[in-house]
Amino acid sequence: MINFRTDLATERTEIYKKTEGIEGTINGIETQKKDINDKISVEIVKIINEEGERAIGKPKGIYTTIDIKGLKIAQEDEINQSAQVLSEELKNIIESHIDKQGEILIVGLGNETVTPDALGPKTINEIEVTRHFINYMPQYVKEGTRMVSAISPGVLGTTGIETVEILQGVVQNTKPKLVIVIDALASRSIERISSTIQISDTGIVPGAGVGNTRKEISEKTLGVPVVAIGIPTVVELATLISEGIDIFIERLQEKAESNDYLNKLQQNDKYEEVKEALNIGDYNMIVTPKEIDGLIENMKEIVSQGINLAM
Amino acid sequence: MINFRTDLATERTEIYKKTEGIEGTINGIETQKKDINDKISVEIVKIINEEGERAIGKPKGIYTTIDIKGLKIAQEDEINQSAQVLSEELKNIIESHIDKQGEILIVGLGNETVTPDALGPKTINEIEVTRHFINYMPQYVKEGTRMVSAISPGVLGTTGIETVEILQGVVQNTKPKLVIVIDALASRSIERISSTIQISDTGIVPGAGVGNTRKEISEKTLGVPVVAIGIPTVVELATLISEGIDIFIERLQEKAESNDYLNKLQQNDKYEEVKEALNIGDYNMIVTPKEIDGLIENMKEIVSQGINLAM
Amino acid sequence: MINFRTDLATERTEIYKKTEGIEGTINGIETQKKDINDKISVEIVKIINEEGERAIGKPKGIYTTIDIKGLKIAQEDEINQSAQVLSEELKNIIESHIDKQGEILIVGLGNETVTPDALGPKTINEIEVTRHFINYMPQYVKEGTRMVSAISPGVLGTTGIETVEILQGVVQNTKPKLVIVIDALASRSIERISSTIQISDTGIVPGAGVGNTRKEISEKTLGVPVVAIGIPTVVELATLISEGIDIFIERLQEKAESNDYLNKLQQNDKYEEVKEALNIGDYNMIVTPKEIDGLIENMKEIVSQGINLAM
Amino acid sequence: MINFRTDLATERTEIYKKTEGIEGTINGIETQKKDINDKISVEIVKIINEEGERAIGKPKGIYTTIDIKGLKIAQEDEINQSAQVLSEELKNIIESHIDKQGEILIVGLGNETVTPDALGPKTINEIEVTRHFINYMPQYVKEGTRMVSAISPGVLGTTGIETVEILQGVVQNTKPKLVIVIDALASRSIERISSTIQISDTGIVPGAGVGNTRKEISEKTLGVPVVAIGIPTVVELATLISEGIDIFIERLQEKAESNDYLNKLQQNDKYEEVKEALNIGDYNMIVTPKEIDGLIENMKEIVSQGINLAM
Repeated sequence: MINFRTDLATERTEIYKKTEGIEGTINGIETQKKDINDKISVEIVKIINEEGERAIGKPKGIYTTIDIKGLKIAQEDEINQSAQVLSEELKNIIESHIDKQGEILIVGLGNETVTPDALGPKTINEIEVTRHFINYMPQYVKEGTRMVSAISPGVLGTTGIETVEILQGVVQNTKPKLVIVIDALASRSIERISSTIQISDTGIVPGAGVGNTRKEISEKTLGVPVVAIGIPTVVELATLISEGIDIFIERLQEKAESNDYLNKLQQNDKYEEVKEALNIGDYNMIVTPKEIDGLIENMKEIVSQGINLAM
Repeated sequence: MINFRTDLATERTEIYKKTEGIEGTINGIETQKKDINDKISVEIVKIINEEGERAIGKPKGIYTTIDIKGLKIAQEDEINQSAQVLSEELKNIIESHIDKQGEILIVGLGNETVTPDALGPKTINEIEVTRHFINYMPQYVKEGTRMVSAISPGVLGTTGIETVEILQGVVQNTKPKLVIVIDALASRSIERISSTIQISDTGIVPGAGVGNTRKEISEKTLGVPVVAIGIPTVVELATLISEGIDIFIERLQEKAESNDYLNKLQQNDKYEEVKEALNIGDYNMIVTPKEIDGLIENMKEIVSQGINLAM
Repeated sequence: MINFRTDLATERTEIYKKTEGIEGTINGIETQKKDINDKISVEIVKIINEEGERAIGKPKGIYTTIDIKGLKIAQEDEINQSAQVLSEELKNIIESHIDKQGEILIVGLGNETVTPDALGPKTINEIEVTRHFINYMPQYVKEGTRMVSAISPGVLGTTGIETVEILQGVVQNTKPKLVIVIDALASRSIERISSTIQISDTGIVPGAGVGNTRKEISEKTLGVPVVAIGIPTVVELATLISEGIDIFIERLQEKAESNDYLNKLQQNDKYEEVKEALNIGDYNMIVTPKEIDGLIENMKEIVSQGINLAM
Repeated sequence: MINFRTDLATERTEIYKKTEGIEGTINGIETQKKDINDKISVEIVKIINEEGERAIGKPKGIYTTIDIKGLKIAQEDEINQSAQVLSEELKNIIESHIDKQGEILIVGLGNETVTPDALGPKTINEIEVTRHFINYMPQYVKEGTRMVSAISPGVLGTTGIETVEILQGVVQNTKPKLVIVIDALASRSIERISSTIQISDTGIVPGAGVGNTRKEISEKTLGVPVVAIGIPTVVELATLISEGIDIFIERLQEKAESNDYLNKLQQNDKYEEVKEALNIGDYNMIVTPKEIDGLIENMKEIVSQGINLAM
């Protein structure tokens, strides 16, 4: 199988089509694009059968990608607009699984003390929870309000416990009808860092993006549907360099015409070789914009507002 | 019953003795003091039967108080020494309940974004967890190492879930033999703010100190022994003022001799009256040293080191 | 002179009138009130001569107080509205001193690592500075834009340098036409904590509110007009308790009629006595709402937006 | 001139020797190495004349580099040891310029809200300043104590003022005999991120490492000697990739023997080309270990302890 090194379904379909030389659509995958305005666009990738699953290595389900241009310098207006779009897409996915009053548990994955990993816990701090009001002060709550609770379970490295174990316990005790998890992802594209949101209804493998694969958080492990909101915050260094070398080889070939060595090399996966050559060793090197702290603040606003609106 | 307005067993025994005019010991309560050095002293209060329970309104068990003078300006040495004392006392209590390899779950209560309430979560960040190493990389772990895990479950106001519900889930799934909870307490004494540590084996009612009583976290609700480490970080304003007025009335009486109004007033609970008169309203006013951020950093060091040493 | 224990001109005029038994206006002081809406009101105190100065112990000038009810639970709308009001009042004061293009230096006083003292530095982080654009990229800046720069000079305790010394250096080198300083104040009233803004054109004595008087920052020391934006974030404990006792004595007197001891006591300044009796010692105890971290975030939004709008 | 893309004198000498094919020493540059223990080593590069200056593009002076292995997992002991080494080297350099009582101003450059840029301001928070004690409470200070003050002036982007303008003002008003500046640097080597310290007595050009060159901070601009403590916290992405491609071309050549295109390409500076090809655009992409927050905490400890010991 292709080693995609991205969690985004949209990037995977592009890579698959390029690698296999496919011009039109992939069997088993439907895609659809719409521009909301000149800054925000939405793409929906539906994997409808096992052929689609095998092609891009993701389970059957819906993967909605929202792209926001210029988030770095976004003003309040654009943040509100992006939150509105996220809210709409999120509602569509939620309402395909549960009714308007079904209780929801929102989970912020990641480590608040590690900047590019802090998006989940930071977003949780802004969620408007209602579960305790409905339980303890029902007289103050408008009839029909959805029960919402929220938790940041921490990461294996600081808790010693698999996140899925904590969530299984919480789900068993509080019995939500659906779980939303928010997590940082890896992407292949620098442009997507903290400016793309992927919503899917197939759950998540936390840490997959940053090289520490953990146990799956999904309907299979939690017993209720799991909607994942993933935001790329890093690109892995070796991924980026091996991509850089590919671009470089293409340019060489344009000039050098056929060069057997070059052709062969481009077909190989240079990831491990580059990793070794650059002496990256046991550091988990990531590529991030210098402005990552500010970008994550803006993205936190969008995701928390988007969720609060959708509830 | 007396309204103690303190979570510290040692303060409660003093108040009880003063109110009841008891000179020696309280029936059902044993106390013991020792000075570690000129800055650190330890007091152990044992409630041994129901008479003791009724007297100070706390369940049967051991309550160890460690007092540290001058923590505000403490250097590394004094912090290490205090951690050492905490570690000894904690080991005594733990080993009276489980054996040296029994798995322990450490829980940091409180809200990291509210300074005087952040001690629990901040301490958790410094705990050396081992559970995942023992589970996934047993070859790197010294035989006989205790399994330790750690979690910050958040507070009802931001999660919508009672803390005990989250912990019940985690305990059911990870099956520790003992739980240690770390929480901020209320005290009656300004001098104790962030310079006293109470260790007890009777669990905790989170938020009791700061006016938001929550469901008990104890062996009764979790099914395993619960050791609580509590640190006073605030004094409630109305408590302090009604105490101030008591002192004031005493001084008046010394001069005015018998004054019926004063006598009667001193016997009443002025807390609610003062609260109303000062228009404290629905703010939850607290008294805290201006240096609270720094004090909590020092205390975090002591508690996390103390726990790590005891494990 | 009366010991006012508040930095707010409006509180001082009230205390002065009460102490002196004045019903109408104080000679040398003009006041004016207006309600913006049911949540926001504005009061302007003008000290017009030396008689006014002597009465309330503040230099001649304008003191505008903006009161905002319910800031604790304020939504975006109310924050924007409050910022709008602050912006109007600030513009009035600035334009009475310099023209629309006169360069302004904004200074955030206080210590970012001490929660109730962090408002100044936190606000500075949100100010839109333009000075460097105008200097280095004039082609991108709209004609007539005011030069704005911003600095957080730290506090004496962590820099070892008087704030005014740092500012004198910066003012000499960058030559602004006016300086705006933002600082935390002390108030006598719990209700004013982080819900009142005082704007004055007479400069500031930093730390005056929290017991560490420093050198004056004003036109006298900096050579250009200094507009101060002050926000009460703490009430001193002893102030509050001695006020509590006053209220208490009044109630006693209502019942006990004439009581010489009580009468005499009420006239004394009980501050020092209370401080000693409660053993407050060398801690600088403050009274603060538990929600102070959140309140300061909201206030930071208002002040930074208000300034940005006024520029 | 060679485009070095590193602030470290030791990396520059290596690059220069490799590019020029020099085996022994560079004219005008003296180097000296010592191993403190198996984790810590020190290298001193002295540029002694203009020939040395021209070779590596740095002004005459001493450049001491301390390398610390395994800082990521460093314990208290290793941190203390590293601080000790820094303190010794720093004392050597300071004492070659001023006497034991000469007043020192310590400056933390960088932006505290941007993780890889926060080292300077974070270190300043831990410096033990004495200037105000000596000025206001000389009776409590041991005779012969050096006056130390400390400031974090912020960055041009948030103040609108060139850092050197602020420092000129402060130096004019407080008259220190020497200035120490702490700043984040760029390196060419991933291994050096937050594990190398360079001390030099030639001042600094802030932001040079991260692509925003600002005005020089040196004896020339401040009028007193400027010792710079620089710590690499980032590698620029395009630097790293063009290095990656060089390594890659070398491997190609080993197999392909002479290849004119490859030879020519390796001699070109691919930095700009790579930057463009990868669409890095106006983001300032950096490469950083995922653990950068923790590394910066450890490094802050070493630098602040090292400075405090040297004072």
